[in-house]
Amino acid sequence: MKTKVGIIGAGPAGLMLSHLLHLEGIDSIVLESRSREEIEGTIRAGVLEQGTVDLINAAGLGERMMKEGKIHHGIELQYNGQRHRVNMHELTEGKEIMVYPQHEVIKDLVSARLDAGGEIFFNVEGVSLHGISTESPQILFSDIDGEAHELHCDFIAGCDGFHGPSRKMIPELFRQEKQKIYPFGWLGILAETPIANPELIYANHDRGFALLSTRTPELQRHYIQVDPKDDISNWSDDRIWTELKTRVDTNDGWKLPDGPIVQKNIVSMRSFVCEPMQYGRLFIAGDAAHIVPPTGAKGLNLAMTDIQVLKQGILRFYQFGEKELLNKYSEIALRRIWKAQRFSYWMTTMLHTDHNKTSFERSIQLSELDYVTSSRTALKSLAENYVGLPLEWEGSSLLV
Amino acid sequence: MKTKVGIIGAGPAGLMLSHLLHLEGIDSIVLESRSREEIEGTIRAGVLEQGTVDLINAAGLGERMMKEGKIHHGIELQYNGQRHRVNMHELTEGKEIMVYPQHEVIKDLVSARLDAGGEIFFNVEGVSLHGISTESPQILFSDIDGEAHELHCDFIAGCDGFHGPSRKMIPELFRQEKQKIYPFGWLGILAETPIANPELIYANHDRGFALLSTRTPELQRHYIQVDPKDDISNWSDDRIWTELKTRVDTNDGWKLPDGPIVQKNIVSMRSFVCEPMQYGRLFIAGDAAHIVPPTGAKGLNLAMTDIQVLKQGILRFYQFGEKELLNKYSEIALRRIWKAQRFSYWMTTMLHTDHNKTSFERSIQLSELDYVTSSRTALKSLAENYVGLPLEWEGSSLLV
Repeated sequence: MKTKVGIIGAGPAGLMLSHLLHLEGIDSIVLESRSREEIEGTIRAGVLEQGTVDLINAAGLGERMMKEGKIHHGIELQYNGQRHRVNMHELTEGKEIMVYPQHEVIKDLVSARLDAGGEIFFNVEGVSLHGISTESPQILFSDIDGEAHELHCDFIAGCDGFHGPSRKMIPELFRQEKQKIYPFGWLGILAETPIANPELIYANHDRGFALLSTRTPELQRHYIQVDPKDDISNWSDDRIWTELKTRVDTNDGWKLPDGPIVQKNIVSMRSFVCEPMQYGRLFIAGDAAHIVPPTGAKGLNLAMTDIQVLKQGILRFYQFGEKELLNKYSEIALRRIWKAQRFSYWMTTMLHTDHNKTSFERSIQLSELDYVTSSRTALKSLAENYVGLPLEWEGSSLLV
Repeated sequence: MKTKVGIIGAGPAGLMLSHLLHLEGIDSIVLESRSREEIEGTIRAGVLEQGTVDLINAAGLGERMMKEGKIHHGIELQYNGQRHRVNMHELTEGKEIMVYPQHEVIKDLVSARLDAGGEIFFNVEGVSLHGISTESPQILFSDIDGEAHELHCDFIAGCDGFHGPSRKMIPELFRQEKQKIYPFGWLGILAETPIANPELIYANHDRGFALLSTRTPELQRHYIQVDPKDDISNWSDDRIWTELKTRVDTNDGWKLPDGPIVQKNIVSMRSFVCEPMQYGRLFIAGDAAHIVPPTGAKGLNLAMTDIQVLKQGILRFYQFGEKELLNKYSEIALRRIWKAQRFSYWMTTMLHTDHNKTSFERSIQLSELDYVTSSRTALKSLAENYVGLPLEWEGSSLLV
């Protein structure tokens, strides 16, 4: 079996790369260990940066997103029981964010790929990478029927998430993994209630962080900070609602509507970066290369910018035989990744409550919230990061 | 002995308060444990915020400062061997900073007070505060000749620095002290060399922070980060220059001029805040209430804003019998103090090298520097804090 770009992983990064390459006439094959149903059903993030929205539209995939997604012009920050609006739209001169869940993006990508005759192997097993420092690397795998295949390609894109095999193929001597494990977990719920607030609410409270978000007019996604080692069975629906309300109800009498909880789980939080993101003909992207805590809403968006740099590099290689941008993939992507890591780290530490902090550190945290909400310049800084920083190379944008 | 406001400490806070009260016709007496020569000769900070410059001028004390001080329109940030200019003047719509040493401010204040017949007792001993929760507190002290006095007043202003007796008079039950001790020290030198650079240079280097500043065209004040427990005797002049040059010389060939070192010492760094800053008729201000690490150049400037709030409160009390502002002194002053603490903490952690940091944290630090120097909004945020944030109460400024 032969293709130009072998893509491991049918997440947003792998599927979008395959789609963008297809639009440029470059063929690829996508390998995915899970089933189509599974990748289309897993609840993940839901906030798209302006640049991600632009990319999806420019790639001709925006129809359902523009109809079913919800454009938000801002968010609200809450602390000491008071809300402060961050008007992203006005602070960034017209940019906005889109609330449209990641699994819906995946559905749109899968159907676009399949409609165009793209090859996606679901339920593959035993994926292994070979010859990545040669000019003709191969991927071995077994398909859903257990048949073994050898996929020969010019490049391998490792879009196989944090636990996939790609990253580990970069020899340890050349690979540096940097990370921070936070003492915070997020208990997330899907609840059948009316929309709590037209915009996302990020709340800091002495008892911990809380986030109110929305999926549909009838289904809401809320989170509360908990101990990452806590067990979901310790959290009755009643306890969850009591805790959420304590953290998000305001001094001026706003109250959170509750209702049946249809799903609940606890996830831990980490920041992680692998440097570099290339070795030979292997390029890793998205969660395979970096993880952000969800507070900054950057995970999916970073995957989308990685892919745009990588696609441009591959395109230049095939169009002009030029390898420069491809060789700089890691450097260019990492600079923006670190800025997004910085922002996610900052949002996380500003909004979560760490009971191991000293009273000095807690006061600094509250003062940060006070400064951010009282200085237009500080609000602009938050907003420009939230809607997404530019990605430039040699003075021109690498984003759509 | 009797006065309206008994002021403990002839630092910038105490002397300026005495002067401002005098301009309003309110008499005060200043008590100082050191000699005039000592307070006029101790080398301290040298960067005045726009608001401090405005205050000194409005108080009629600006003549020598405007002649001998040096107006700076910006600073330079250096990391990875590259300089990045922060054009404060342009970023803050016309604000600037003044390099004019603190002991020169003190000289101007002392002579203004003495010329106006103001009473300053130097070399006092055994200062103690009494009756601060009554309406007629007293200060007991012995003068330079050993004669005991009892100073009766309406208010006591504790401007007696970190080690003075005033803060400790706030009962422990009502007093919360918040602090952070940094693992950084500053080795400061005075060197007889030409000016290194027209503006201050704040440099981050793997080996540690360095700061280049100036006193006069012939005398420069430079600093390098060292272990706060290090002994100055370990630092020969040669070793200091080698270390400084390693940290501030640039990739494009800029080299630091050296020369004879006429003074050198090591100081440790802390952040400290006492809450509240009032108890009964005692009001503490400046270093008595808060300490900032020198990185943000805020120490003297914070003392000056405390004093402006306090003076307005005292003035309203005598003019209108109104106590509201005086009762809010602590709350109003602390809000701005915490923002300055936040800025100083941020500048300190962004610029110093902490070898106990993880590689993740070091990358976040470099990314912070990258973000700050590549985003106009982030630069504006740094600049608005560096020149000094506003201080408002009920919608109108409390600053000159």
